[in-house]
Amino acid sequence: MPKINRYVDISTIDREAKKDYIDRHSPFVHCESTAKKGEPFKVKVKMGNEYCHPDDFDHYIAYVQLWDGETLLAQTNWQPGAMGNQCAHAEVDFYIVPQKSKLKLTAMSYCTKHGLWESDPVEVTVED
Amino acid sequence: MPKINRYVDISTIDREAKKDYIDRHSPFVHCESTAKKGEPFKVKVKMGNEYCHPDDFDHYIAYVQLWDGETLLAQTNWQPGAMGNQCAHAEVDFYIVPQKSKLKLTAMSYCTKHGLWESDPVEVTVED
Amino acid sequence: MPKINRYVDISTIDREAKKDYIDRHSPFVHCESTAKKGEPFKVKVKMGNEYCHPDDFDHYIAYVQLWDGETLLAQTNWQPGAMGNQCAHAEVDFYIVPQKSKLKLTAMSYCTKHGLWESDPVEVTVED
Amino acid sequence: MPKINRYVDISTIDREAKKDYIDRHSPFVHCESTAKKGEPFKVKVKMGNEYCHPDDFDHYIAYVQLWDGETLLAQTNWQPGAMGNQCAHAEVDFYIVPQKSKLKLTAMSYCTKHGLWESDPVEVTVED
Repeated sequence: MPKINRYVDISTIDREAKKDYIDRHSPFVHCESTAKKGEPFKVKVKMGNEYCHPDDFDHYIAYVQLWDGETLLAQTNWQPGAMGNQCAHAEVDFYIVPQKSKLKLTAMSYCTKHGLWESDPVEVTVED
Repeated sequence: MPKINRYVDISTIDREAKKDYIDRHSPFVHCESTAKKGEPFKVKVKMGNEYCHPDDFDHYIAYVQLWDGETLLAQTNWQPGAMGNQCAHAEVDFYIVPQKSKLKLTAMSYCTKHGLWESDPVEVTVED
Repeated sequence: MPKINRYVDISTIDREAKKDYIDRHSPFVHCESTAKKGEPFKVKVKMGNEYCHPDDFDHYIAYVQLWDGETLLAQTNWQPGAMGNQCAHAEVDFYIVPQKSKLKLTAMSYCTKHGLWESDPVEVTVED
Repeated sequence: MPKINRYVDISTIDREAKKDYIDRHSPFVHCESTAKKGEPFKVKVKMGNEYCHPDDFDHYIAYVQLWDGETLLAQTNWQPGAMGNQCAHAEVDFYIVPQKSKLKLTAMSYCTKHGLWESDPVEVTVED
């Protein structure tokens, strides 16, 4: 099975190369902590907080998925070169319309050399 | 072959149902008219300007693609329900990094009942 | 995070409903146990051995992925209705060209109601 | 808009390089001419009849789609390297379950260097 790599707080890590490796491969979910029921809600998924990831033909971020708990909401696939073949933070803004009282958002991403990675979950309260 | 439907300026159309049909099935590319070479450039693709599209299980916008000329940059797929099963303007913000002097952006979208649609192209000048 | 459900040998399970639930949600990898280096190698991924899965608009198998260890090889997405809206074993034959001495193939699949599932891994010896 | 390239009978073409270019970029739909209503029906989509296509990181077949008229049935995406980074005929077998009396199958494919291509349509009679 593909191993699922998980983000680890890089401030707890000494070795610079490892900080870089973990940060640039981790998707991060950025959104408000509360949403309005039945209204579009923006959710940014962005790779890396501090370190960018290559966009080489043989080494790039191929996709991110946005999940709410065990439900897939959307998936964005990039072709290599979309980030100009330079180091970048691949990112995409999804817009979803919540109908339930809580969201538990997670992003999954795939690097063509370093496999599958999962973000920390982000909880969102949905108000009427 | 799948027919490719193209946007027609709806102000030229009399019949309300046809205006609605064309508008809500057309993807629109929204972005600045100039970009900076080697820097992330935001490109919003949004379905419909004036009319929203259903998000029913048997009738929804399944994907949009962003093209630069004949080169695919990225594709976003939605699962039905991501728009809360209500009428909505499916949208996504892509971030691309241009390296050439011009972009010619087009979006393609697919409705599970009404097929493949193509936006008007949007030209972007890329400055050093 | 999405929970990853794994196949359990259903002969060890008493309750019929649970056997059915596990079997029809599990992808199975079917292929020869040896492949020839540099030659196309057929790998079938098929959902369920004994029980079929609905193809309803609000409940269907949306995709399968084929992995070799931590490397994604290919992904097939279905639109609802591709299985005729009847109970079926969603399946796809991939053809890959191995260059290494061993493959460790796993399939992942996604049901729009019951989430992410993973097959047992299948090891393939690759001969020169 | 992305130009859609179409297959041209290569026996009508003199120049070897052009024959090769057209053939290896064209998806072909291979299936029986009759199907049984409500039963799985195998449809192979294969790139090229006579000429293989590179599987280089910067030049590969990224996806094929299978359409019935204006309805998308399924899409397979490959990662570069799935064909062993050698010249190959990317192929996939889809299984669909027809419920109508006729199918009009078309494949679309995308080469990361040479854009979007469309197969000749294949008509299938569906018997009760």
